[in-house]
Amino acid sequence: MKKILVIHGPNLDLLGKREPEVYGKTTLAKINQELEKIAKAKKVSLKIVQSNHEGEIVDLIGKNKEKFDALLINPAAYTHTSVAIRDAIAACGIPTVEVHLSNIYSREEFRHNSLIAAVAKGQIAGFGINSYILGLEAAISLVTKT
Amino acid sequence: MKKILVIHGPNLDLLGKREPEVYGKTTLAKINQELEKIAKAKKVSLKIVQSNHEGEIVDLIGKNKEKFDALLINPAAYTHTSVAIRDAIAACGIPTVEVHLSNIYSREEFRHNSLIAAVAKGQIAGFGINSYILGLEAAISLVTKT
Amino acid sequence: MKKILVIHGPNLDLLGKREPEVYGKTTLAKINQELEKIAKAKKVSLKIVQSNHEGEIVDLIGKNKEKFDALLINPAAYTHTSVAIRDAIAACGIPTVEVHLSNIYSREEFRHNSLIAAVAKGQIAGFGINSYILGLEAAISLVTKT
Amino acid sequence: MKKILVIHGPNLDLLGKREPEVYGKTTLAKINQELEKIAKAKKVSLKIVQSNHEGEIVDLIGKNKEKFDALLINPAAYTHTSVAIRDAIAACGIPTVEVHLSNIYSREEFRHNSLIAAVAKGQIAGFGINSYILGLEAAISLVTKT
Amino acid sequence: MKKILVIHGPNLDLLGKREPEVYGKTTLAKINQELEKIAKAKKVSLKIVQSNHEGEIVDLIGKNKEKFDALLINPAAYTHTSVAIRDAIAACGIPTVEVHLSNIYSREEFRHNSLIAAVAKGQIAGFGINSYILGLEAAISLVTKT
Amino acid sequence: MKKILVIHGPNLDLLGKREPEVYGKTTLAKINQELEKIAKAKKVSLKIVQSNHEGEIVDLIGKNKEKFDALLINPAAYTHTSVAIRDAIAACGIPTVEVHLSNIYSREEFRHNSLIAAVAKGQIAGFGINSYILGLEAAISLVTKT
Amino acid sequence: MKKILVIHGPNLDLLGKREPEVYGKTTLAKINQELEKIAKAKKVSLKIVQSNHEGEIVDLIGKNKEKFDALLINPAAYTHTSVAIRDAIAACGIPTVEVHLSNIYSREEFRHNSLIAAVAKGQIAGFGINSYILGLEAAISLVTKT
Amino acid sequence: MKKILVIHGPNLDLLGKREPEVYGKTTLAKINQELEKIAKAKKVSLKIVQSNHEGEIVDLIGKNKEKFDALLINPAAYTHTSVAIRDAIAACGIPTVEVHLSNIYSREEFRHNSLIAAVAKGQIAGFGINSYILGLEAAISLVTKT
Amino acid sequence: MKKILVIHGPNLDLLGKREPEVYGKTTLAKINQELEKIAKAKKVSLKIVQSNHEGEIVDLIGKNKEKFDALLINPAAYTHTSVAIRDAIAACGIPTVEVHLSNIYSREEFRHNSLIAAVAKGQIAGFGINSYILGLEAAISLVTKT
Amino acid sequence: MKKILVIHGPNLDLLGKREPEVYGKTTLAKINQELEKIAKAKKVSLKIVQSNHEGEIVDLIGKNKEKFDALLINPAAYTHTSVAIRDAIAACGIPTVEVHLSNIYSREEFRHNSLIAAVAKGQIAGFGINSYILGLEAAISLVTKT
Amino acid sequence: MKKILVIHGPNLDLLGKREPEVYGKTTLAKINQELEKIAKAKKVSLKIVQSNHEGEIVDLIGKNKEKFDALLINPAAYTHTSVAIRDAIAACGIPTVEVHLSNIYSREEFRHNSLIAAVAKGQIAGFGINSYILGLEAAISLVTKT
Amino acid sequence: MKKILVIHGPNLDLLGKREPEVYGKTTLAKINQELEKIAKAKKVSLKIVQSNHEGEIVDLIGKNKEKFDALLINPAAYTHTSVAIRDAIAACGIPTVEVHLSNIYSREEFRHNSLIAAVAKGQIAGFGINSYILGLEAAISLVTKT
Repeated sequence: MKKILVIHGPNLDLLGKREPEVYGKTTLAKINQELEKIAKAKKVSLKIVQSNHEGEIVDLIGKNKEKFDALLINPAAYTHTSVAIRDAIAACGIPTVEVHLSNIYSREEFRHNSLIAAVAKGQIAGFGINSYILGLEAAISLVTKT
Repeated sequence: MKKILVIHGPNLDLLGKREPEVYGKTTLAKINQELEKIAKAKKVSLKIVQSNHEGEIVDLIGKNKEKFDALLINPAAYTHTSVAIRDAIAACGIPTVEVHLSNIYSREEFRHNSLIAAVAKGQIAGFGINSYILGLEAAISLVTKT
Repeated sequence: MKKILVIHGPNLDLLGKREPEVYGKTTLAKINQELEKIAKAKKVSLKIVQSNHEGEIVDLIGKNKEKFDALLINPAAYTHTSVAIRDAIAACGIPTVEVHLSNIYSREEFRHNSLIAAVAKGQIAGFGINSYILGLEAAISLVTKT
Repeated sequence: MKKILVIHGPNLDLLGKREPEVYGKTTLAKINQELEKIAKAKKVSLKIVQSNHEGEIVDLIGKNKEKFDALLINPAAYTHTSVAIRDAIAACGIPTVEVHLSNIYSREEFRHNSLIAAVAKGQIAGFGINSYILGLEAAISLVTKT
Repeated sequence: MKKILVIHGPNLDLLGKREPEVYGKTTLAKINQELEKIAKAKKVSLKIVQSNHEGEIVDLIGKNKEKFDALLINPAAYTHTSVAIRDAIAACGIPTVEVHLSNIYSREEFRHNSLIAAVAKGQIAGFGINSYILGLEAAISLVTKT
Repeated sequence: MKKILVIHGPNLDLLGKREPEVYGKTTLAKINQELEKIAKAKKVSLKIVQSNHEGEIVDLIGKNKEKFDALLINPAAYTHTSVAIRDAIAACGIPTVEVHLSNIYSREEFRHNSLIAAVAKGQIAGFGINSYILGLEAAISLVTKT
Repeated sequence: MKKILVIHGPNLDLLGKREPEVYGKTTLAKINQELEKIAKAKKVSLKIVQSNHEGEIVDLIGKNKEKFDALLINPAAYTHTSVAIRDAIAACGIPTVEVHLSNIYSREEFRHNSLIAAVAKGQIAGFGINSYILGLEAAISLVTKT
Repeated sequence: MKKILVIHGPNLDLLGKREPEVYGKTTLAKINQELEKIAKAKKVSLKIVQSNHEGEIVDLIGKNKEKFDALLINPAAYTHTSVAIRDAIAACGIPTVEVHLSNIYSREEFRHNSLIAAVAKGQIAGFGINSYILGLEAAISLVTKT
Repeated sequence: MKKILVIHGPNLDLLGKREPEVYGKTTLAKINQELEKIAKAKKVSLKIVQSNHEGEIVDLIGKNKEKFDALLINPAAYTHTSVAIRDAIAACGIPTVEVHLSNIYSREEFRHNSLIAAVAKGQIAGFGINSYILGLEAAISLVTKT
Repeated sequence: MKKILVIHGPNLDLLGKREPEVYGKTTLAKINQELEKIAKAKKVSLKIVQSNHEGEIVDLIGKNKEKFDALLINPAAYTHTSVAIRDAIAACGIPTVEVHLSNIYSREEFRHNSLIAAVAKGQIAGFGINSYILGLEAAISLVTKT
Repeated sequence: MKKILVIHGPNLDLLGKREPEVYGKTTLAKINQELEKIAKAKKVSLKIVQSNHEGEIVDLIGKNKEKFDALLINPAAYTHTSVAIRDAIAACGIPTVEVHLSNIYSREEFRHNSLIAAVAKGQIAGFGINSYILGLEAAISLVTKT
Repeated sequence: MKKILVIHGPNLDLLGKREPEVYGKTTLAKINQELEKIAKAKKVSLKIVQSNHEGEIVDLIGKNKEKFDALLINPAAYTHTSVAIRDAIAACGIPTVEVHLSNIYSREEFRHNSLIAAVAKGQIAGFGINSYILGLEAAISLVTKT
């Protein structure tokens, strides 16, 4: 059974808990439920972690790299500032899918550049919770193919 | 029945016909077949067009905008140079999904910027033919929701 | 009788047909009517063309350059991306007036730069349909003077 | 009767007085005469001021803002350097038309950027004295409409 | 008794007089009253001037530099364009506090850079009238300490 | 009773302990004492935390956002590099005051840009310990007003 | 017999027809005659096309790529704006020679950058009609060698 | 007898009056004395003005342009920000010598660029009072030659 | 006996464990052994720490600054993004040697800039494990000299 | 008989002597032989020099400028850094052809800019030894025409 | 008797010998004569050298630095490219005057920046041969004063 | 016996001879002595050259490339300006160590970029004479290993 590591970056723990009129009412728990449902259907197993700490995310990737077949990551704010996570992904060598809830290209200029994108297999952005669902499908497809 | 317009931008007619060792053996015909299969399953209808002409793509979007519920587009080279296609999408107002076969963020610097992204609902890049499949799912999901 | 070529650039065919709450209810047909009315009053003849194709606009300018005394052009999206239209205007040598419905200087940064402006006689922007009317007056004045 | 404030920026007092082979023989007095003639015909009243002082122009706009229905301004050199005049126009809130005798886009690079344009209703540049005449027509049209 | 020179830059004379829904109803007179009240309580004397003229502000600083112990200045638009005021403050050598009513860092890009900041002791921005009150307290603290 | 969260960013634990000739002899403990004194006088309660960890600061803001009425933060080095803290502040939605001991605008170029400023209510920089005192007053004023 | 595709980009149809004092009296027909003469002497066959349409040039390259051994192209204005032509040349894989009548490096700044150059075998610029002649020789040499 | 207009820009009235340890003890009066002495010896007449007002300097140049044979100017802070003074000098057409007391190229980056230099005949910087003396000699030489 | 703190930055725990064909087979343990061997020979003591957490590295430097005579650091990815580590080093004031296994100047553009270099005594890059050995010699030499 | 000066810039003496698998086996001697052969056939005489010294190349151009009718130069590394050679060519005034063995536009970014190109008649790049042969033909054609 | 080293940079040996209609008829010999005449009058001795070699100029400055009291240099093209000459001047420590025949600020953009200016005492540009004469006076004044 | 070429770039001949309070009293002769001592101990032979001429350094590298096993170079000022030396090193292909006496990253901005670094094996900067000693050790290690 293929295993996929799912990492939610900084501030994603706040989803749905606050300003639902802005961010929607979907909580991270709900997103995780949806992902588990798909994983079950597609017969892959998931390990899902949320962290606000860049170092913890680097640890997670580095220490688990032999235990997983793919990485699904929403690096959130670290997308634009973390060379350390980029290097961890590059070093870890497993196929990586980068997802974003919002369309980062229609937001502030500094969000248009992703340090992660060049080392990921691909990127999905702008579809809300659907970015995760499509991203998981992409990841499953990658580990099934290889 | 929801209708989706699928536009393949410049040079995509060459897919699979040349340098299969580089671009893979998947032809555009094959991609279209896969898209039609999904469309059938999901009960949406597709109109698929390939064009090397910026003006033709602008015509297509402008003239069909009332006949379709969503747009799935791989703007290819025009991603980086066409304000006209961007304006057509913005004027047309139907939800748009931008897809790319390759990961444009790991290629030449001038390919990192998409003029289209800011007016699309979201973007999917880097998964080869799978970018189209996930993109069509995203588009269907958008027209189903709204 | 002096002759003036009027060119409407990409997406201007959509004017007034869609999102009237945004773009107003004035259609391109209505703008053309107003222009013809003035032309009649001022005793000049007009040839009016709309095109979404950069190449067609280049053709139009190059092929008609001996048949017209002035050019009135709203290059729309091509304002910011077309060196080919710029070169056609420069090569054609007849006095050119560049008009824009909106104030391009209060929109996105990439719209602040016009590749056309340096080869036009002058530029009028921001007055809606009035930009065209003032532009035609400017063009008539230029061909009357010279 | 609608009232329009006309402001001529720095160095415009020198028009026609010197280097007529370069700047033409039209003096500022002549331009003002033409503007008054149109104003009379269109039944609006004008107050015309020339100043080389940024602060004086800011004073003029701020202190007269309730006495006028529109502003016609050739900010000349201050076009490119005065945030203070920009702020005065924005604060004053009456519709503003920016005019330039020359085509600022075919001159030195630093003249391509106007700090004023984003807060004006529209801009007219490159038609010599005609820029003023078209500008006054634009201004009259704006105050007549609103 | 310590003396503090308070300078209000361009367009601040318009505060509260226009667009109260935007800028609030606080007039400059009201701000000055509040400052005088604090000055009285803290036993310092104030000289308060508003000017739209860069040169006048330079004069004020240069000519009064021996009569005051500190400078409290809201350079407004000149914040971003005046090397002359910067040089006057540097030459004058008395401790200077720069204040802004609005948060200049959440406005247009060109407002993010202050030519004055590097020669001021410190900067306070974004608290409306409170920026002045805190600024005066900062200035008093500076002249009391030294 | 209003509650204010006070966060001291990286390296502020070293204040006064080393190089007192450079940074002064004021320790962080002393600054905190001064803040508590004011809080007591103004009848607000404070929670004061120092952390060198970006992730911890993000946690603090996210997890406490419903327990506090305002945030007073000296983001120190993270001012210039942390999109994660910016996003946490924006998501948390309580009024935020950014303070700096030194005048960041008279230091190295890379310190002139604050990623935090655009989401804070306002900023106070350059007054040493007084930046904190004025900042606390600003924060109290914000929570008292709203 | 080796076959070479010769493409003349936008506005080159106007050569020699207008402003002969500027562009010389050499028409495109004359250039083509000279090229055919050399081709005959060197025993290669030519297909020569002029187009003002970016899309047509992309079509030409993509659709003919198996019928020709080399490409000789003067992309004219599209040199600086067309990623689509660049991609067509890269995809087509036959050796390409880029020529320019004028020295693009002594003209406007925006003409100093060629999007085509990186995918061409080499570039010849500045020798007028001779650029074409040398370019054809270079192309013949390339197809003869390989 | 040739006449030369000497303009001292903003803050130069403070020379020698303050911080003599930094700027030297030479007052502007002393500099003017030295200039008059040379003028007398070389049989030219001087009109010397100091102003902190950009507009006044523009007035001075524009209004006196027929009364003087050359201009000697130290634009001080306006060197880097005044397009208006640049335009006045260009319009006035008399030979202009730009002088600076300090070496502007070894100071802050924003002082390295002079808006005035391109329209002056030449520039002398870095020699203290001697910059003026050499500048006057240069000016005299220019009016003597022509 | 002199004491040296050795810090290995993010992802260095992965050395030699993965992709030995790329990074070589040298593990971090092996590097540490080599360093201890030299330390023993040169009679200095080492404390060696690896961390993926920026905050932890800041803690380490700040909290140990009185217990060590020099710092040997490979900041890895934080080289390019951490102002916090830079500030910690500057505040700590003990001589610091920055080392890199790879030649950061022949890698991606964003790796060419080190935020750490300006506050370190010196930098050694590109010699693999030898960078550490030379770096330790440099550090020993620095603490021996002072 | 027309005379042409041929200058080979820095490091071209190494051609063919080292790394033949990279640079080919053609030595500079061989290139010179080919050039002489053409010269003989076309009845022009050549003087061929190779130098690694910028100053020597400047000397060569300056001192020989009356003895030659054209200059054929491969400035190699000095293409991107030598204003002195540019000035020498501009001062010398004889028609100049710039050649490059490699396609400088597909190499490192800093090689895309030629300081020489703007003062040369034209440029030929990317055809290996053939760049020289075509360059010599271009030069002969230039001296024959004039 | 004070001694001054005069260095003429690259291509200055060509002065007056070619294109007299452009550069004037003044030869370098004539300039040197004028300089010697002044030197004699002011009782200083000169050593005058012209070189096209950056290295030779560095040698000259480094090797003669104890034999001269001041340096008068026209670095010509090396003004914009030579860090080596800049370092030689800085290391040599004798007062240096930089002169230019032409106004480098009204020429190509790349000539606006002088690498030498920051280490020279001052700069004189734009007065033709008079730049040298004024420069020598400045140099004499510097060595007389100190 | 392995042979190493040691090159000292421009102005290094002045070391220790002048301004010993700034650059220290170590002369280049002393540095060379230290290097020879190490070479003797490690049984390698050195050829040491100092030159102020870029062309000479290029000659040295190109002409000696088969006689040496490694290159130790302090390119000094040419670090930032010489593409020719970079190309010579790249062409020569022997392992190269770049050293700098000072920490170039804490000096002027233009010294932060090394054109040489990308083609060197590694770089050592900031340790004074120790940079050379460590650099020689690095070079010996490189030639011993391969």
